[in-house]
Order: sequence, then structure tokens, then C-alpha cells
Amino acid sequence: MTKSVADDPVRLLKDLIACPSVTPTEAGALDLLEITLKSIGFEVTRLVFEGDGSYPVDNLFATRGTGGRRLLFAGHTDVVPPGDLANWTADPFTPREADGKLYGRGAADMKSGVAAFVAAAAAMPADAGTIMLAITNDEEADAINGTDKLMKWAEQNQHHFDFAIVGEPSSAATLGDSIKIGRRGSLSGVITVAGIQGHVAYPDKANNPMPALARVVTALDTTIDTGTEHFPATNLEVTSIDVGNAISNVIPAAGTIRFNIRYNDLWTPDTLTDWVRCRIASIDPAGASISFELAGTPSRSFLSPLSDDVQTLSATIAAITGQPPALSTGGGTSDARFIAQYGPVVECGLVGPSMHKADEHIALSDLTGLTNIYRRFMLGFFGVVS
Amino acid sequence: MTKSVADDPVRLLKDLIACPSVTPTEAGALDLLEITLKSIGFEVTRLVFEGDGSYPVDNLFATRGTGGRRLLFAGHTDVVPPGDLANWTADPFTPREADGKLYGRGAADMKSGVAAFVAAAAAMPADAGTIMLAITNDEEADAINGTDKLMKWAEQNQHHFDFAIVGEPSSAATLGDSIKIGRRGSLSGVITVAGIQGHVAYPDKANNPMPALARVVTALDTTIDTGTEHFPATNLEVTSIDVGNAISNVIPAAGTIRFNIRYNDLWTPDTLTDWVRCRIASIDPAGASISFELAGTPSRSFLSPLSDDVQTLSATIAAITGQPPALSTGGGTSDARFIAQYGPVVECGLVGPSMHKADEHIALSDLTGLTNIYRRFMLGFFGVVS
Repeated sequence: MTKSVADDPVRLLKDLIACPSVTPTEAGALDLLEITLKSIGFEVTRLVFEGDGSYPVDNLFATRGTGGRRLLFAGHTDVVPPGDLANWTADPFTPREADGKLYGRGAADMKSGVAAFVAAAAAMPADAGTIMLAITNDEEADAINGTDKLMKWAEQNQHHFDFAIVGEPSSAATLGDSIKIGRRGSLSGVITVAGIQGHVAYPDKANNPMPALARVVTALDTTIDTGTEHFPATNLEVTSIDVGNAISNVIPAAGTIRFNIRYNDLWTPDTLTDWVRCRIASIDPAGASISFELAGTPSRSFLSPLSDDVQTLSATIAAITGQPPALSTGGGTSDARFIAQYGPVVECGLVGPSMHKADEHIALSDLTGLTNIYRRFMLGFFGVVS
Repeated sequence: MTKSVADDPVRLLKDLIACPSVTPTEAGALDLLEITLKSIGFEVTRLVFEGDGSYPVDNLFATRGTGGRRLLFAGHTDVVPPGDLANWTADPFTPREADGKLYGRGAADMKSGVAAFVAAAAAMPADAGTIMLAITNDEEADAINGTDKLMKWAEQNQHHFDFAIVGEPSSAATLGDSIKIGRRGSLSGVITVAGIQGHVAYPDKANNPMPALARVVTALDTTIDTGTEHFPATNLEVTSIDVGNAISNVIPAAGTIRFNIRYNDLWTPDTLTDWVRCRIASIDPAGASISFELAGTPSRSFLSPLSDDVQTLSATIAAITGQPPALSTGGGTSDARFIAQYGPVVECGLVGPSMHKADEHIALSDLTGLTNIYRRFMLGFFGVVS
């Protein structure tokens, strides 16, 4: 048994990095977390979810306290693969300190967030209120048997929360310069434009779908909206166009357009799907048949209310860093989208530029700083007089 | 030694089909032709050309007579692969007669043309004039070490001609309904449109080349000319668009547009290349860089003069079929483009709808008819009183 490292975020982070928990392999990371949380009074439930076309995933839910206000921390222990080891200065799963930094896969994204929160929780009085953790080992890949199902399970088991923090790296350049209060939605689709194949020498006997395909791409290249108070403009990017015809004398039968839309709180997947259909309908198909379908499940956009809790978090950060954080809704999607269905959620974590890269690292002072932010926020959230 | 089958086109065609001469394997087809031509007085030269980035190819040049007018017949003994044998009623290289038809790979394209011409030549008096045959075993594939080099060799060796016939299937629906007096040129190109790769969530840090690519495709989808007296309009077909980005959250770095132009006698490869460059320059690249290069060597367009010899051929066909042929310049490219550089050439052969397909076949009566067309044309061409 490992001696509890609950109150030492650096030690806990190093122990977590030493677990090579590439999605979906838990590799001891959740086991370590379970032992650590139990050592500071948490009840821990391990939940393996499986099915729905994805691999089985290990998840952890922990709770301490039964009364008072209810704070949920969410995150993940899984990490992306290290990639080419030749790009790493040292073994990615051997934590390494150098020049005030801690190196290792997952150091930034986001074992540090987990370690900081556990250390901050360890410093809270046991009767402060209810503290919960929802930790998955599949945020980086399918995310089908992870936070989504874990939150459904929590809801069914009456583990409600008043406020949630996701510990993903949310800072842009310096610790606490930004927290995320919402996320854009994401919708991917495939449009197939089909004509009639033939020989290039006999175009009258064929119908080349390429000009219609080009018109669809042009029709999608337009302003969708101009943004909202907390969100930038909705944006569509064509991510691929593919025909795969290597034969220079053949008019192709069909081509596909793949695209992704990052959208703000003006839209739902349904209204956006209608928008795409209208854009397609606006062009002259010239005899081509055009079909459109979603690729994967769209993620909805969300925006958490600017509540007293958000103000408390902002004020806490301002007290520590000297400046309140920007309230951002930028960036990609995160598991916060699954949590937002059940209550207000923000993302507040470390600086993330090295995440997913070789020699991923954090500044050790940022880990201490984040622990401090979480700890002082909890004092305010729970109304504990320090 | 095979008994000579020179004067029996059906027998000769069957023997040729039995040689599985898929490009570039001669498989005995040229050997059989050499023996047959020698048996009716031809001097035969075999020439293997190689290099220039292609495989070695066996070719045959035959000549009989030294004076009078000079007629060249050109064609090929190679055939395209049979494809999936399950689509054939019987073995593609075992000639099979049924219902007045002869089945086998190469029956239409174009062992029949070779057989018909040899049989017609066999019927000519030896002193009628000069008859030459230029036969390659690589028309269906690279065509780098075939007719192109064979014609250069013939020119260097003083084998000039007054008129040439290529025995490719030139008839549209019934024997002799069409001969080809010219061919469009063909030019293929690749346009690469490059931007800056990035994450779809951060479009400001990337530059998606897809909208510019679509504008290039649209700019190419325009009228190039309206045709000339003997040619249809020049036509461009985009044959493929490819990006190959399978990742839905990545803005792609670049895409390629492949196209082919079939062009009439208003254009040369150089003027067409300029036209493509002008069309590309007409669009807003929006920061994308666009490059264009030719794919392969363009083939030039040509048009043979409407000489007395073309009139003789037309009149011969009219006398046999009851109707003069259309003087066409339609269809794909053929080896006639290599011959046109040295003298007037027409294509006159069988009906071609089954060529390159499973159960390729001809009507036996058409083979007899084509032999008759060639024979009676030669009587007129050489001024032989029959």
C-alpha cells in the first residue's frame, strides 16, 4: 500500500504520472486515486461502463460529507499516447523535475488538476459540506463509457451538485488568466454528391458531380452568425473533400465533403442540420444527387450562468494572481458538456500549451498555485472561516 | 509451324485471340503475325523498344513492294486484361463462336482489324504498290515504347507513306457508319491548393484551402470554345478532388484537383496550359497558394485533310454498306496521334461497344465486311482494275 500522498500535490502528481494510463488503460491511476481519497475520508465507488460501440472504461466516483453545499470536481486520469519516444528527453512515464518544472505525459492534461483538487480537499474540514469527484479514464478518446455515463449514474443515485469544476487546463498563458464558463457545440457531417460515372471523352453520357460539389463547398463558406455575448461566431470548416479517382480518363461517380461546425448558443444540432440542408438546397445540383448525414454524435453548446460561485472563483483567482480571469468560451469541446446537463460547470485548471506534446510539463509553482486556488475557492464556496 | 491463315480472317483472328497478349506480353501474337505476313511476301522486322520509364515492348514492322503508292496499316496486338473471369461466359483467350458472333478478349479491340487487313492484303497483287504494317504490343497501356517509337524508326528508315489506316474500332452502331479523320488532344493536370493546417476550434490560426479549391473547380467549369468544323467543343472534366483528411477536428493543409481536357484543333498543349493558369488566376485565393502542373505528356489534336484517299474510303464504304460513313473526330485518343505527325491517317474498323468488357465479341459478318472494305479500298487506292 502506498502511503497517502493526499496533501502533497507534487508527490501525488508524480505517482499518477508513473501510471502509464493511456486511454482506456487505467494502469493503476484510479487505484492510486481510490486509496488516496479513502485516506482522507471519501467513500469511493468504481464503475466500469461498457457497450454502445466502445471499449469498457474504468471510472471513479467519490463523495465526502452529506450536508451543506455540494461541490463536484470532474476530470480524467487517462492520457494521450506519448507518440514517438525519440521526441522525449526522457521516459514519458517517469516523472522528472528540472528547472522548476515537472515533466511527464499527463503532467498538464490533467493529472495535475486531479492532484491539486485532492490536495485542496484534504485541507478542508470534513464537515465543510459535500465534496464529490467524478473521474473517468476515457476523456481523450471515445468518451462514450466515461463522464457521460458517470454523470447519468450520479444523477440516478442522487449525487446532485450546486457547482462543478472541471480541472482541464483552462489557462492561456499564465495560471488563472482564463476560466471557461461555456463551450461551443461541435457538429460534423458528410455530404455526398453523386452524378453518373463515364469516360472523359464522352461527357454527354456522364454527369460529373464535381462542379456541383464545388458549389456546395462555396455555399457552406458563408457567415452563419456574428457571435453572442459570450461566444464567438459559429464557424464551419470543410475538413476534407475526397473522390479517390486515380484514373485520368474517368469522370467520377461521386465525391464526399466532410465538415465540422463549432457553434455558439444560438444553435442546436437540429437547427444547424436544417441550416446545412438549406445551404445545400440553395445551389444548382445540375442533375447531381446530394445527400447529407451527421458524422458521429454532435455535442451541444452550453453556457453556465454567471452565478455567485463563478464570482467567488474569479475573486479567489484575482486575490492570488492579482487579476481576475477572463471568462472564456473558446477552445475545443471537453467533458464539461456532459456535466452542464445537470448543473452549472466551469473549467479551471493549469496552463496547457505542452499538453498532448512531447516533453509535456508544468511549472511546479503553478501546481502549488492551482492547489491554492481550489483550496481558497472551497473555503469561500463552503463559507468556512479560515 | 502454323499453316498460313493469311487469307482467312476468321481463322487468323481466332489464332490471335488464343494468344493471351495482355500488354506488354506478346504471348505469340506478333510471332504468329510475322509468320503469316512472311507467307504472303512481306519482309518483317521485329523491334523491341525500351527505356524512358516504361517496360520493353515488342513491335513489328512489315513491308511488301517498293514502288507505286504507299499504304500504311497501323494497329496493335495487345489487349486489356480480362478482369474478373466470373463475368465471362467462357475463357477469354479461347475463341468461341456462337450465334454468328466470335467471342474473346481482343475480338473487337483490335485483333479483328489486324486479321481483316492481313486478309485484304493477301488478296492484293504483289505489284499493286507498297503495303506496310506497323503493329505494336503496347497501345493499351503506357504506349511509350510502341507506335510512337515505331513510327520514328520507320521515318528514319525511309518507310514513308501516302495514307495510313488505323484499324481501331471506329464504327458507332453498324459497320462503316463512321470513320475517324482526326482526334481531339488530351491534357491532364494536377492543381494543388495549399493553406495552413490547424484545429477547427481555432480557425484564426489556420487558413483552410477548401473554399479556394472550390472556387478553382468552379472557375474551370466554363465554356472553353464552341467547337470547330470537324470537332466538338473543347471540354474539361475534373476527375478527382482529394484531401485525405480523416480527422474531423483538423483543418486540412492542402487539397488536389485532377482534371483532363479533351481539346480540338484550336488549341495546343501550350495554349491550353496558359488557359488553365488564367482560370486559376481569376479566383480569389484568400491566402492559399495554388500550383499547377501537367500530369503525364499531353497528346496533341490532329485533323487529316479530306483528301482523295478519304473520298475513296468513303465511297468504298458507301458501296458496301449503302451509306457513306460519318467523318468523325470524336472519342478518346489513339495511336493515330503518333502517325499523324508523318502523314494523313484515318481510323477505320469494327463496331466497338464490347471492347474492354467481359464477353468482348464481334459479329462474324462484320469481320468479313471489314475485310471487304479494306480490300476494295486498296483496289481503288492502288488503281488496280478488279
